[in-house]
Order: sequence, then C-alpha cells, then structure tokens
Amino acid sequence: MKILIQRDQLMNSIQNVMKAISAKPTIPILSGMKIEATSEGVRLTGSNSDITIESFIQKEEDGMVYIQELVPGKVVLQAKFLPDIIRKLPESEVEIESDDQYNVVIRSGHAEFKLNGQDPEEYPQLPILETDNSFELQTDLLKTLIRQTNFAVSTSETRPILTGVHFKLEEDYLELVATDSHRLATRKIKTDGDTNGISFSNIVIPGKSLSELNKIIEDTQDPIHISVSDNQILFKTKNIHFLSRLLDGNYPETSRLIPDQSKTEVKVNSKELMQSIDRASLLAKDNRNNIVKLVTKAQNQLEITSNSPEVGTVEETLVTDSIEGEELKISFNAKYMIDALRAIDSDQVSIHFTGAMRPFIIRPEEETEHILQLVTPVRTY
Amino acid sequence: MKILIQRDQLMNSIQNVMKAISAKPTIPILSGMKIEATSEGVRLTGSNSDITIESFIQKEEDGMVYIQELVPGKVVLQAKFLPDIIRKLPESEVEIESDDQYNVVIRSGHAEFKLNGQDPEEYPQLPILETDNSFELQTDLLKTLIRQTNFAVSTSETRPILTGVHFKLEEDYLELVATDSHRLATRKIKTDGDTNGISFSNIVIPGKSLSELNKIIEDTQDPIHISVSDNQILFKTKNIHFLSRLLDGNYPETSRLIPDQSKTEVKVNSKELMQSIDRASLLAKDNRNNIVKLVTKAQNQLEITSNSPEVGTVEETLVTDSIEGEELKISFNAKYMIDALRAIDSDQVSIHFTGAMRPFIIRPEEETEHILQLVTPVRTY
Repeated sequence: MKILIQRDQLMNSIQNVMKAISAKPTIPILSGMKIEATSEGVRLTGSNSDITIESFIQKEEDGMVYIQELVPGKVVLQAKFLPDIIRKLPESEVEIESDDQYNVVIRSGHAEFKLNGQDPEEYPQLPILETDNSFELQTDLLKTLIRQTNFAVSTSETRPILTGVHFKLEEDYLELVATDSHRLATRKIKTDGDTNGISFSNIVIPGKSLSELNKIIEDTQDPIHISVSDNQILFKTKNIHFLSRLLDGNYPETSRLIPDQSKTEVKVNSKELMQSIDRASLLAKDNRNNIVKLVTKAQNQLEITSNSPEVGTVEETLVTDSIEGEELKISFNAKYMIDALRAIDSDQVSIHFTGAMRPFIIRPEEETEHILQLVTPVRTY
Repeated sequence: MKILIQRDQLMNSIQNVMKAISAKPTIPILSGMKIEATSEGVRLTGSNSDITIESFIQKEEDGMVYIQELVPGKVVLQAKFLPDIIRKLPESEVEIESDDQYNVVIRSGHAEFKLNGQDPEEYPQLPILETDNSFELQTDLLKTLIRQTNFAVSTSETRPILTGVHFKLEEDYLELVATDSHRLATRKIKTDGDTNGISFSNIVIPGKSLSELNKIIEDTQDPIHISVSDNQILFKTKNIHFLSRLLDGNYPETSRLIPDQSKTEVKVNSKELMQSIDRASLLAKDNRNNIVKLVTKAQNQLEITSNSPEVGTVEETLVTDSIEGEELKISFNAKYMIDALRAIDSDQVSIHFTGAMRPFIIRPEEETEHILQLVTPVRTY
C-alpha cells in the first residue's frame, strides 16, 4: 500500500474514526485503526463493542484532489499515536507506505515515522448491514433531534433499556423518546413521505452511540440515510458510515406518563427563567440535591428560591407573560429544568402543572414543533 | 457596610483574590474573602499559608465611576460561591449590604442572595511589610522574567529550596535562577538604576507563588514595586498587593554548573528544532522517559531520533545554520529541551555542547538579553 494524501483531510477522518477506538478493547487488534486503500480512495475503520465508524476519503471530490498517489493495499496501525503524529507533521502532504511485513512508514518533509503495523486479515470482519428498512432525514435535523432528547437518557445500568433513546417510525412520523424515570424528553417530526413506507416501533439506540454520532456528523442539509435491522442501526452520509448496536429489550410505554390536563399554566420567557433557576441553584448545589422551589404569586409573578442552611438563601422574582389556574408551590431539580428549557430552543415556553406532586410538562409557547419535556417534582412541602 | 458597584470590576477583583483562597485552609476563616469598604473604595483580601492577595477597587479611576454608593464597613464572606454568584447576576450593577450580625445581602435586578457572613475581626491580621528594600520594574518585564525561569523549579519536596526561584539583586543587575537539578533556567537584566542602591542575594520565592502572581498582573509597562524583608516579598501595582512568603535556606551556588567552554556549537532555527523534537518525542512518551537522541551529521545537518520498541521509530533530519567543533551523539529529555527553547523567545539559538555526558547550554544566537538555559543529558550511548 502507498498513498500520498492531504494531511488535513486525513486528520479529519482520523479524528472521526478515533471516536470508535477504545484504549482497552476486548479484542487487542481493535486498539488499531484499519487503513485500506482502493482505487477510489482511502477507508479508515475503527470499532468497539458498541459502534463501528468508517470514514472514506475519496481520491477526488468536487474537483479537489485529496490523494495524489495511490497503490491499493491495507494495514492496521496502532491508533493511539496516530492523531498526534499526523497533526504535527511539517508539511501539508503525507506519504504512507506499508510493505508485506506490515512495516509502515509515514513521511512528511524531513520527518519519518516507522511504525509496526498489523495484519489486516486479523481485523474482525465487520457486519454488513443490508436491509430494506431504510429511510433518510436532513443531517442537521437528526442532529437537533438527538440534542433535544439524548441528554435525558439514564446513566445508570439498573434498567439498561433506559440508557438508550427510543426511535419509533409510524405512519410517516418519527418520534424520539428518552427518559431516566425522573424526567422525559420527546420530539416528533413528520418525515414527509421519505420513509419508503417502512415502520418500526422498538428501536432503542444507546445514548453514548448517539453522542458520538452527533460529534461526527456535520450541520448540513445533506441527507443522512438510516437503515435498521434487528440488532443494529446504520447511519450513512457521503463519507461516513456509523454503525451502532441496538439495546435489547422492550422500551416502556411512556405516553401514559404525560398528563393530559393541567391545573396551572405559566407562560414565560425561557431564557429569563433558565437564568433565574441557574442562579437559584448556585447555593442548592452545596446540598448536592440541587433543588429549587417555585411559587406562583400575584401579578403574574413567579418566586424562585433555594437555600443552603450553611451558606444562605437565594430569592428571585420573575415577571411572566401569564399565570392561569390554581396557585402552586413546587420543588424540582434545577438541572433537569435547565436541560429541558435548553432543549426546547424557544424564546417563550408554556409550563403545564398538575399540582405539586405530579410531573409537569414544558412546551414551546408557539407549538410549531412537537417537542415536549417532562420533569418530575421533588417532595419538599 | 453598603456598596453599589460595577459587576465587571468586582468580578475581576474577586477572580484575582480567589487565587489566594484555598478550599481547605488551615484556619477555617481563610476559606472566606474579606470585603472592606472605606471612603476611597473597596478592598478584597484572600490569604493562604503561602500568599496573600489584596485587590483594591477605587471609587473612581481615570474619570470612570466604579462605585456609585459607599457606606464604610467590613465583613468576611464564604468565598467558594462568590465568583459564580457575581458572574451570573442579571444586571451590570451589584448592591452588597451587611448588617451588624454579618448578614449579607447581594442584590442585582430581581435576584437577591442572602448569605451568612463572618466577623471580620476574626480574620487574621495580615503582616504589614514595611521595608526600605524596595525597587521597581516594568510589569511586563517581570512577567517575562518569571515565564523564562519559573518552569524549571523542582516539583519535588526532596530539596524544598529548589521549589523556588532565586532572585539576586547586585550592582544594578537582577538575576533569576531556577533549577530542579536536571535543568537550569536563568535570566539577568540591568535594572537601570531604579533599585535605590539596595541589594540582596538570598531571596527564594516559591514557584507556585510566582505562577499565581503571573496570572494576576497585567502585561503593561506600568511599574510594579517590589519590597523585600527577611521572610516575605511584596509585589505592588496600582490595584493589587501580592505578598508571598520566602523559602528558608540557602540557595545552592549554581554558576559553577554552567560550562565555560564548549566542544560543539550548533546554530539552528529554534522553532524548527522545537517541532522536530516534539515529533520525535511522540513515540518516546510511550516509554515514559521521553528521551530523544541528537546526532551531528555532515553538511550542517542534525539527526533527531527516538524509538519505542513496541510502536516504532521516528527519524528527523534538520538542516542547521552551522555546526562547529567535534562530532556529537547525545540524548536528553525532550520536554526539558522544548521548555528551554520556548523560554528563550528567539528565532535563532546557539547550543553549546561539551560532550555527550556534560550539561549543554542554549542561548539566543544574537545575545542581546542575558538568558541561558541548561539541560543535563541522559546516558544512553
């Protein structure tokens, strides 16, 4: 194998693929990165027990030449040092060459690295996901959907199924749900008939996989293709293949958790509410429970307070757009509320309470998008 | 006490003073910040066993009004939460008020923090350094002197005196020396007669104090006043007093460590050498010893190599400006060499070797400043 390649392109691909490479993998060769040169370009592969990432650098793309020289072949290289080596090379072009013994030379300017490679035949054959269950979305929309839900997955392995985001595709609606049983985030979109008539109802993707995916895919309007099998999901853009395992088990029915009526409704500026809660939680953090209290007052005002016996108290008064319904005193985890408000992305939100002991929901005031955040209160009164 | 003060000014002062406040101080009240309002302005004080920092916010400065309202008084406030509280306040003005019971209220817009203060009389009386041993420097020059030497202090407490930087003022020359016994950094300047005829020869300032000082003082040409007593040193700018303890003991005589002749002299571009060594050290780091080898070659070339048996080898060829004297093979710690080159701040450096087993020295090629870096080689040949 021999390639003469643009350093910046190579660097970008390496950084993407590194996200799938673990320092201490179950199979030793998976601490390496597979480099494969074909007549079309160079493919880098990294894999761990959860995800596999392939990044493809085309020889030429949009009239730009990224690979000047290309002799097909393949090799596996220890991944740990690669990002630093490539980043610090003196010139903008890199030559990578390997011989029959998998001795690899990386050259750039007067710098020469000789690295011990490994036999690519020892690299596990990765599952090829072939399925008709395939549809596409705009890449930036998928990024938003993940950002609006993925933060709410459980970080505890007590109920492993809750560490993933539930994807449901039915009648041209795609719905994502995540919950750690204290709060819930859900977003639903119409898929505009791009789903080829397919549907699925029990796809649960590990939250960690989605976090890595969101770091790699770009904020573009280009389509991302999504294919689903029984135990895997593949996200495909022009240059990246991202394969994740799915979580086993049935995702709980969450729709019954969402109250269908409310007793108190508050309309308020999202950013002002977020900042007030953030300040109130400054002292609450000292207790490690991070609880703030919210009380409705006359003249459309909210009082937000918290206290830490040793340090002191915080009191915020916030003027809302409107408060309708019953008076309310409620306590909740400040972080859950801030996460929810941040995910909603709306200047004005409406919050629907059903008493101090029942979960409450937060939606954009102008509901043009089907997004809903639910937070369970904490009993303090 | 009552003050109405600009948030940004207050924030800046708090951040400076926080650098002297430890989370777990020996005396509990030192986890607090002392706030003192006088008719001239507000003084904040923080202190730990090594340093004391006072920051003063004048009521008015250069025609700007920083404090709109001022009722004298003082109080001690738990420091841990202060930076976050002040940073996140909604308005650009902050009101701070305390009563006889040291209950403190911080108000800004609709936010109100009630904090439990402490009696300022319980705050230790800080030593007032009055001495005639005082001189001044340009602040930015002091910053440079510290940056060029302080990195070389020892981090081990085996010989505590080596954890500090030795300051020597004699005949209008100020000299700083730091060494961890593997490398040495020294810089000497002429003080242009601003030293009031004073001299000292055994002032050793803890490296950690100098690191904190360098974060606080600004890169200006304004003077910084330096006063020295037997066991303390005070750095004074317009708004900051920075007091540090001195280290006990005699600093070793270091001048005899510096070779006065050389057998091989290399003149080379500093940045190119630094980058070559940095690349060569990428694999060397795997051994945890970080050793690179340097070999002089024909045609004014240097070969820089390192190897890690498991990973591979790196080889760099560097064209120098000149190599004079004996041929040389030498090994050294890459980090020491990179630190030294970075401190020198010169495009071209000259390196003076006295054989593979003797310390070598690095100087700017155009010696307009008295700076010298010394590195002890490692025995590998």
